[in-house]
Amino acid sequence: MAALDKLTSLHWDPVAMRVRVIDQTELPHRLQWQTLDTLQSFCHAINSMQVRGAPLIGITAAFGLALELARDASDENLEAASAVLLQTRPTAVNLRWALRQVSRAVVGLAPGERAAAALARAIALRQQDIEHCGRIGEHGLQLLRGLPRDGALNIMTHCNAGWLATIEWGTALAPVYQAQQAGLPVHVWVSETRPRNQGASLTAWELQRAGVPCTLVADNSCGQLLRSGAVDCVLVGSDRTAANGDVCNKVGTYLKALAAHASGVPFYVALPASTVDWSCAHGDLIPIEERCGDELLTISGVDSELRQGTLRLAPAGCRAANPAFDITPASLVSALVTEQGVYEASERGLADLRRQIDSSGPM
Amino acid sequence: MAALDKLTSLHWDPVAMRVRVIDQTELPHRLQWQTLDTLQSFCHAINSMQVRGAPLIGITAAFGLALELARDASDENLEAASAVLLQTRPTAVNLRWALRQVSRAVVGLAPGERAAAALARAIALRQQDIEHCGRIGEHGLQLLRGLPRDGALNIMTHCNAGWLATIEWGTALAPVYQAQQAGLPVHVWVSETRPRNQGASLTAWELQRAGVPCTLVADNSCGQLLRSGAVDCVLVGSDRTAANGDVCNKVGTYLKALAAHASGVPFYVALPASTVDWSCAHGDLIPIEERCGDELLTISGVDSELRQGTLRLAPAGCRAANPAFDITPASLVSALVTEQGVYEASERGLADLRRQIDSSGPM
Repeated sequence: MAALDKLTSLHWDPVAMRVRVIDQTELPHRLQWQTLDTLQSFCHAINSMQVRGAPLIGITAAFGLALELARDASDENLEAASAVLLQTRPTAVNLRWALRQVSRAVVGLAPGERAAAALARAIALRQQDIEHCGRIGEHGLQLLRGLPRDGALNIMTHCNAGWLATIEWGTALAPVYQAQQAGLPVHVWVSETRPRNQGASLTAWELQRAGVPCTLVADNSCGQLLRSGAVDCVLVGSDRTAANGDVCNKVGTYLKALAAHASGVPFYVALPASTVDWSCAHGDLIPIEERCGDELLTISGVDSELRQGTLRLAPAGCRAANPAFDITPASLVSALVTEQGVYEASERGLADLRRQIDSSGPM
Repeated sequence: MAALDKLTSLHWDPVAMRVRVIDQTELPHRLQWQTLDTLQSFCHAINSMQVRGAPLIGITAAFGLALELARDASDENLEAASAVLLQTRPTAVNLRWALRQVSRAVVGLAPGERAAAALARAIALRQQDIEHCGRIGEHGLQLLRGLPRDGALNIMTHCNAGWLATIEWGTALAPVYQAQQAGLPVHVWVSETRPRNQGASLTAWELQRAGVPCTLVADNSCGQLLRSGAVDCVLVGSDRTAANGDVCNKVGTYLKALAAHASGVPFYVALPASTVDWSCAHGDLIPIEERCGDELLTISGVDSELRQGTLRLAPAGCRAANPAFDITPASLVSALVTEQGVYEASERGLADLRRQIDSSGPM
């Protein structure tokens, strides 16, 4: 992607045996890279949300496990390191999926062969993510081309499901970038995404950088925008999708889905199939991460001289609740856009997707 | 209200011929009073949201007009001052209503008699607001008593419709305060209300001060809270209500109404009848105030040493849209709670309310 100066969110350096990631907690004010080379640094990066986004979390964890096996490839350490990485974030299923991919690649191998095999798998997962997101973009672009529009196509998104959440392209933003490349005029309504403001700090930054016209709005405005006809479709990512098509995604997604449904606006969810939790029958079985209330009581940004600061918004002693995700029932989802194609958000649609994956072979 | 230390949001000082209001832009960090004694100071207070909330805006404007008539009671100035005050905020209909109340009280009087009559009307409007909010609280409390609950009654609110938005009691919070006084255990889910954070800075402050248990949540969390059964009813105010029961209120209200409806949770709107725009057939005819995008791009609060500061959240050059209100269709409103009683949110319900007002005499 020329427009992005070939930026990717995670680099693997095979000589120094380390990973470099963009520290997303510094965006949009500073583009700063973070080096990850110890298990602890990988865990910290995921837990503190220096890296975030279901696909990127998974791949980061895969590299973390692989590098840890280079240090100690014993069965015990494989198990212990997997467990520690798995605990960094509870909701995104890609984390578990990616760790399993690495574990399966090394189980049965002699300890001395494990690190190389694990690294090869992590590198392959990274490459696969780029390819899958590219294909999500292609399938999504077909959907976008089919929508009626008056001038630029107005797409609403939530949180960040762009290349910062994956390696390149993104999930929900992949069709947007491909539309731009294909000359289909698009404009994106970027919802702020309180309390961590990923829309304002990551999505707006990504889109601005790529030259895609976008407008930031409060999450609260999205209902009114949808009612007023200003939105042609909603396009979001997913942190975990249940086998019946219920979608777990960043908190606030459900409200947009309700409003899109009420206004007859298509609501698309873009996801790599690795985000589907086949063992989860419906969305209410997905654990919802409860994050620290401070994310809501205080806010960080930069002052007029670009110095980072944190301010308190709420009265001292205020209690806060801060669930990080919500569940959008499958009935509100117009379609699931995956690397395998576009599927109905239903038990039947997910079964079709599974058959497609099984028939196309392992990994 | 003993629990509030008898704080009221607007004081009239007849000796000094001036008004004192709480500067709500300083809350929750500082309780600071602002003196209003010139037309310009009243306009600034309303426009800059030092005072806000439909009922309080109306009464503040009434005092502003009355004091301006004490300076110059000519027909020309009556008209000019009314026009200037009316332009401070476009959405709340109480502003227009209160200015008309004052105008009608003085039209036909000799200029020398106008100021006293105008002031008498402003004082009466203030007193009437306290009484009406008290009655809204009583009618609302009856509704709350009728709800099934398991322990404390969990009420979700949006923005601030407490005594800070009126003179005393509030509209949506009046039933909450009366429940507390009556010993009915309540807990309030306070939605942050981006972009101006009136939930975090005003409602949480009011409730904490009054000793009402409350929890701050991101606007985005409200759908998930409603789905999960954590909310027994939603109770909000209104800036303008159309003759068919459509409700215009702080942006984000509509999303809560959709989510309440989807989960079968009652959605009540509390309002003085002065908030009804009888000339407005339905909600989509109500002008929606578009406020400056900076409200979204930057945020104000206090640092750890209580120094006020402003931080930028979004990337430089980011475009923002910032509608301040949205429309909740009458079909999503379970009931309108007014000083006259509880009415259906429908053309019929509003006609009943109007008959009730007409039969109870002028003003």
